[in-house]
Amino acid sequence: MSRKPAVVLLSGGLDSSTCLAWARKHQDFACYALSFDYGQRHKVELDAATRVAASVGVERHLVVPIHLDLFGGSALTSDEIAVPKGQDVDKPGAAIPPTYVPARNTVFLSYALAWAEVLQAQDLVIGVNAIDYSGYPDCRPEFIAAFEQMATLATKAGVEGSMRLKVHTPLISLTKAGIIELAEACGLDLGLTHSCYDPGEFGYPCGECDSCLLRKKGFQQANRSDPALAKRLQNR
Amino acid sequence: MSRKPAVVLLSGGLDSSTCLAWARKHQDFACYALSFDYGQRHKVELDAATRVAASVGVERHLVVPIHLDLFGGSALTSDEIAVPKGQDVDKPGAAIPPTYVPARNTVFLSYALAWAEVLQAQDLVIGVNAIDYSGYPDCRPEFIAAFEQMATLATKAGVEGSMRLKVHTPLISLTKAGIIELAEACGLDLGLTHSCYDPGEFGYPCGECDSCLLRKKGFQQANRSDPALAKRLQNR
Repeated sequence: MSRKPAVVLLSGGLDSSTCLAWARKHQDFACYALSFDYGQRHKVELDAATRVAASVGVERHLVVPIHLDLFGGSALTSDEIAVPKGQDVDKPGAAIPPTYVPARNTVFLSYALAWAEVLQAQDLVIGVNAIDYSGYPDCRPEFIAAFEQMATLATKAGVEGSMRLKVHTPLISLTKAGIIELAEACGLDLGLTHSCYDPGEFGYPCGECDSCLLRKKGFQQANRSDPALAKRLQNR
Repeated sequence: MSRKPAVVLLSGGLDSSTCLAWARKHQDFACYALSFDYGQRHKVELDAATRVAASVGVERHLVVPIHLDLFGGSALTSDEIAVPKGQDVDKPGAAIPPTYVPARNTVFLSYALAWAEVLQAQDLVIGVNAIDYSGYPDCRPEFIAAFEQMATLATKAGVEGSMRLKVHTPLISLTKAGIIELAEACGLDLGLTHSCYDPGEFGYPCGECDSCLLRKKGFQQANRSDPALAKRLQNR
């Protein structure tokens, strides 16, 4: 039997890369990796996504340009809002941070749905996480369930009753350390991934943004060293 | 009191233009009109959208390039699938036509949601119609309700309880003739709008696609002549 197709959202970060490895190695999906060029500051992520897709093995990797920057409103796409540094990442969810991109996961999942419909796939995979989630509302299980419901009603196949869309969230209840362990179990080289919101010259991580701090904490808790960091030191 | 902001999806066709006129004139919203350049064959629609936005009066009109054509799968974005002509438009919904763009309204509404979030608007307006709807699944009230539910869970303001997103569908239960009457009541010049899926040279309507046939039938039933058609004959 041929493998079932799944569309996997891939930013090139630790979380989404782990999802891709999980979808390919653990679920044996035929993976269609979907990345977005959305005017983010951290375009080095897209290079990481390309490396990860090639390393894990996908049917196809698409990078779709989207223009959420036209709306403004986020530190990740606007030059007028600063990326916060040195926050207390042990208290996620206290406030929704300015790195929040408006309706980002809704837009990303909508594109994934469009591709899935063309591929006749009924499985989407997204690396949302309700533990270390930095307080984004569209990373919660309630949102994912509502999206599945809406998506099934939105599509030809859903209406005809021949499919029920499933959004897989393999990381939803994992700590960062748990994600790192899952990545390892799926044979992913985490040295290929990139997490920083505000990388410096040559794409090196800043070490101070939420994303860098969460990653660092995860590797500490998993009692491992970060292979991406090792590479950085090597190349200095 | 200043007017409430609303994001209105505007293709430049008869339906969405009527929605914009309704939102501006009937609801007194401060309107933010949102159009998409999605690789559609009928780019003359976008010129119509610009004319309509200027005529009705909006706070801002954005044309956002989106790349659903990368996925393929629709006669409206793919050169390999023909636009069907001369269909029986009195039997909508019998089959979902090849002019269906995968997950189109989901993607469009997601962008509208992103802009709404930045504007702190809680009102979206979309010209879906469950009567003359050509059989698209994402034009039904069930889909709209599911989108509202999902969108409220997706956003900062929804989670914080300070808003409940509303998707207005003023045309949902109107016939094409009813839409034409609403447009007139709101003072819209329908001669500015464009409906054809497959316009010929100079952007003239083909007169044979679903969209042209529905429009023609609507004007007949409303006992009016189509001002866009009159312009076409004039300019010949």
